[in-house]
Amino acid sequence: MKVVKIGGNVVDNEELLAQFCMQFAALEGPKVLIHGGGVMASRMQEKAGIPPRMAGGRRITDDATLQIVTMVYAGWCGKHICASLQALGCNAISLSGCDADVIRASRRPPIAVEGEMVDFGHVGDVRSGSVNADALRRLLDAGFVPVLNAINHDGNAHLLNTNADTVASAVAAALGAELIICFEKPGVLLDKDDDASLLRELDSAKYKELLSEGRIAGGMLPKLENAFKVLAAGVPKVVIQHSSAPLGNSGTSLCL
Amino acid sequence: MKVVKIGGNVVDNEELLAQFCMQFAALEGPKVLIHGGGVMASRMQEKAGIPPRMAGGRRITDDATLQIVTMVYAGWCGKHICASLQALGCNAISLSGCDADVIRASRRPPIAVEGEMVDFGHVGDVRSGSVNADALRRLLDAGFVPVLNAINHDGNAHLLNTNADTVASAVAAALGAELIICFEKPGVLLDKDDDASLLRELDSAKYKELLSEGRIAGGMLPKLENAFKVLAAGVPKVVIQHSSAPLGNSGTSLCL
Repeated sequence: MKVVKIGGNVVDNEELLAQFCMQFAALEGPKVLIHGGGVMASRMQEKAGIPPRMAGGRRITDDATLQIVTMVYAGWCGKHICASLQALGCNAISLSGCDADVIRASRRPPIAVEGEMVDFGHVGDVRSGSVNADALRRLLDAGFVPVLNAINHDGNAHLLNTNADTVASAVAAALGAELIICFEKPGVLLDKDDDASLLRELDSAKYKELLSEGRIAGGMLPKLENAFKVLAAGVPKVVIQHSSAPLGNSGTSLCL
Repeated sequence: MKVVKIGGNVVDNEELLAQFCMQFAALEGPKVLIHGGGVMASRMQEKAGIPPRMAGGRRITDDATLQIVTMVYAGWCGKHICASLQALGCNAISLSGCDADVIRASRRPPIAVEGEMVDFGHVGDVRSGSVNADALRRLLDAGFVPVLNAINHDGNAHLLNTNADTVASAVAAALGAELIICFEKPGVLLDKDDDASLLRELDSAKYKELLSEGRIAGGMLPKLENAFKVLAAGVPKVVIQHSSAPLGNSGTSLCL
């Protein structure tokens, strides 16, 4: 079983998305896709005259913003990806957490971010216990490939905006599946400007060594932190790789 | 098996929608919901500075309009209805035609409308053969309640805007299911201003009689025309009723 995650940068780029869909359709065995859409949501917010407000990297989600992110993630992105996969013979089914009750989130209470209390509005948190693994398995058993966005529900008719990375980790943990995280680089690079410095494998000992040497920085830091947390939570394998490369056989393979 | 249709007027009205969801959740046996969302889509188009253009009652759907209707129908309306049904214990799953490949539409070629050639753009037509009854049955068998919007696909990665009434008829025909059409009146009224003039039953002989007497007019005319066409296509029963009344036991029951 494989859980694959693509971010908003891939979803927002026609060419990257088409290349990724080819790879995802070709991936054998049971699989689940989780996609973002944040780049497109921000653009749609600007268009609607509701500029995005972020705190600690998360989108503050008032009523109008919830409507926009739901329309963008679950409407445009989800259905566009699903139709593309169907055209490639992959029997995709695009779902939010309310669909088949696959994921319930809990509304995040106001919390301190950088010393200030922030009410994130309709933002939810997802944990491994939030995932209805039985519903996902029934869909997989019926021959469908779940494609999940980060709009989830609380079970009381409210939609909540959650984080696609956290959803991917929770789904992989709940299904005991390998997690493949796709982005716009070939994997973990020792020198971010040199693709040849790709690490094929990275275990936690080597990770700590690189960390102490200050050789992991920038956007890779939270990605690896999250990946090792996911491994510690019982996910058997995490791969970080380019979204256009064959899935699972390229990039950096992480283990404890 | 019952197929239920609600239009954009119900979807756009919080109170009507809540009342309908209670009735739909309470409906026993296998069921499928088809919903519109046209009122909300038109409002969203106005907001985005793309005023709706209609021809023969259908929305001309250019690129920007396709994005808006997909976001509104499949995103906001679909997920909102689904979360509401889930909160009532109904295991809804909100789908467009691309999801699980449930419905394929064919793009409508430019056609003459009131003497003028009209290119409807990304508008598709749905027929009974367009419905993947097997996929719908697999979802029903797995314990899910399909909630369909009128965004469908052509199998070649293109989304198409179709008509929710036609989708409902095609799904009912493909599943051999009873069709329940909900709107904001108690059913077929002999006097549109008097709810007590409700016809409990209407067969095609009586329908022709009323037609020849000029007692059926306005918006009811196309509704009944469509209903008798659906009956002729093999749907066992059609009910026209108020969206807030118990489903299937009220309103007007039509037969050949």
